[in-house]
Amino acid sequence: MRATRLGKREEGGSSYAYLRRLDEQMKELAEDNFTNEVLATFEDAESARFKEIMQSLIRHLHTFVREVQLTEEEWFEAIRFLTRTGQISDDNRQEFILLSDTLGVSMQMIGVNHSKPSGATESTVVGPFYVEGAPECKNGDDLANGAPGEPCFVEGQVRSVSGGPIANAHLEVWQADDEGFYDVQREGLSEVQDRGQLTADENGRFWFWTVKPASYPIPHDGPVGGMLKAAKRTPWRPAHIHFKVWASGYETVITHVFEKGDKYLDSDAVFGVKDSLIADFVRHQPQTAPDGTEMDKPFYTLTYDFVLAPRA
Amino acid sequence: MRATRLGKREEGGSSYAYLRRLDEQMKELAEDNFTNEVLATFEDAESARFKEIMQSLIRHLHTFVREVQLTEEEWFEAIRFLTRTGQISDDNRQEFILLSDTLGVSMQMIGVNHSKPSGATESTVVGPFYVEGAPECKNGDDLANGAPGEPCFVEGQVRSVSGGPIANAHLEVWQADDEGFYDVQREGLSEVQDRGQLTADENGRFWFWTVKPASYPIPHDGPVGGMLKAAKRTPWRPAHIHFKVWASGYETVITHVFEKGDKYLDSDAVFGVKDSLIADFVRHQPQTAPDGTEMDKPFYTLTYDFVLAPRA
Repeated sequence: MRATRLGKREEGGSSYAYLRRLDEQMKELAEDNFTNEVLATFEDAESARFKEIMQSLIRHLHTFVREVQLTEEEWFEAIRFLTRTGQISDDNRQEFILLSDTLGVSMQMIGVNHSKPSGATESTVVGPFYVEGAPECKNGDDLANGAPGEPCFVEGQVRSVSGGPIANAHLEVWQADDEGFYDVQREGLSEVQDRGQLTADENGRFWFWTVKPASYPIPHDGPVGGMLKAAKRTPWRPAHIHFKVWASGYETVITHVFEKGDKYLDSDAVFGVKDSLIADFVRHQPQTAPDGTEMDKPFYTLTYDFVLAPRA
Repeated sequence: MRATRLGKREEGGSSYAYLRRLDEQMKELAEDNFTNEVLATFEDAESARFKEIMQSLIRHLHTFVREVQLTEEEWFEAIRFLTRTGQISDDNRQEFILLSDTLGVSMQMIGVNHSKPSGATESTVVGPFYVEGAPECKNGDDLANGAPGEPCFVEGQVRSVSGGPIANAHLEVWQADDEGFYDVQREGLSEVQDRGQLTADENGRFWFWTVKPASYPIPHDGPVGGMLKAAKRTPWRPAHIHFKVWASGYETVITHVFEKGDKYLDSDAVFGVKDSLIADFVRHQPQTAPDGTEMDKPFYTLTYDFVLAPRA
């Protein structure tokens, strides 16, 4: 297509303008040829999938560079940004996940992977604070384990899209406390807080105690924080509890339940909110909790059911 | 455009196929809408240029994710790859530059920035081994400073595209030695080797001694090496000397001079070779060198002139 454009002389153009356009078109052709040269070096890749991914990535990166006419200074700033993003990451902090989340790349990836049948619980970002191997708990346990915040009783049922309960479904729960921190963000904390794995009962029912989570700013003292600041974006996320729910024969769902009424629901820094994931955290005065616990201070209750789709 | 496609029913399609297509189109629309939502968060960025760059980057990243239908596992592998790429980088190693170089992003960026007038010396990648503050040397000095390899006498002239010499032009030189290593790659080396800054004389002439560089594999014990291996690509670069040449009123040029006849000229791992940058490294038996030095062992000579374009 470029070849037919080349040399096409518009009526009325001056010779100089014509030569200049020709020069620009030659340059574009050379840039296209260069991209093709790079793509060709992935032709013999050991896997067809790797080749597909790398060639698409290279096409987009090259087009991006040309589209914005990236300068050497900007390129080097990007090199430094990416290097810092890797170097600030450790066992307790994952700045590249935060970058993917804040650019909407994570939610876009989730969108292409989780085309759910109607009624199934929607997925959202896993976020940077998931830690493998949360403690095994049982229904009724207090997952807070001393984390600060008002008590919150969470209950619900895991069901199939066809309506029936999923007996012995597994749940993994993690969340920030009332001060907006995950346990891994608290230096010197030797115990796991606000994390746990549960198994639902024979009716797919689960219940546990925790603390009501607070909305919080994502870590913004690193490269991603600098990016948000330059964009004049807020680092805040609405209050939520993370859930991973799985059962044999069903698609695993990784999601959050958000607090209805939170002022950051419309400006979540990681674009994770979906209407179906918003639920009421109801505050109660001291009284008997749903599991029979006599509460001598105010507490919250949250009821949320998870609906799994059969594995494709 | 999507809106007009939506609901268009092809002749002869079954109702089921029609509904399925409609469903896919709705999904695409939702994904587009999501990308627009992310783009909108950069609308108030503190600089118009930052907004332009980030919005283009986000568009391409989202399209890439959709185009290859990136899975969660692949996404997480990418997160780990990028994290390792940052973490293996330090004062002596820059793996993100290596990544940019091996994906042709660096050369694409150089292509859009250095549209040279005819006759000017072409640019190529800066590479990951440039170190600021190379020692100040003078014409005739030996930059090798003990690096292994056969002596090589380099001389040339810095000229303007209009033909005249550029008096007192500055040059910075860095290169690998005969074993294919830069000084920064040699652990425990306390001295700078094969690096230096020079000032050309009043006729734009420069000359110095060094060792003849060898072709070498780029560092491939890290994430970039893994990527090259998966692509079945060679990590080798043809032998070359790096030059940065600058003078007041002229565009700075960062480039290499490659050895004619090197077997990796057509498969440079970082796509840096241009025909105009290939030159003869001529080997001589013991004799008097061009600067009058009596050589009692074989040596090389390289003659290469640099031609600078006036600053735009």
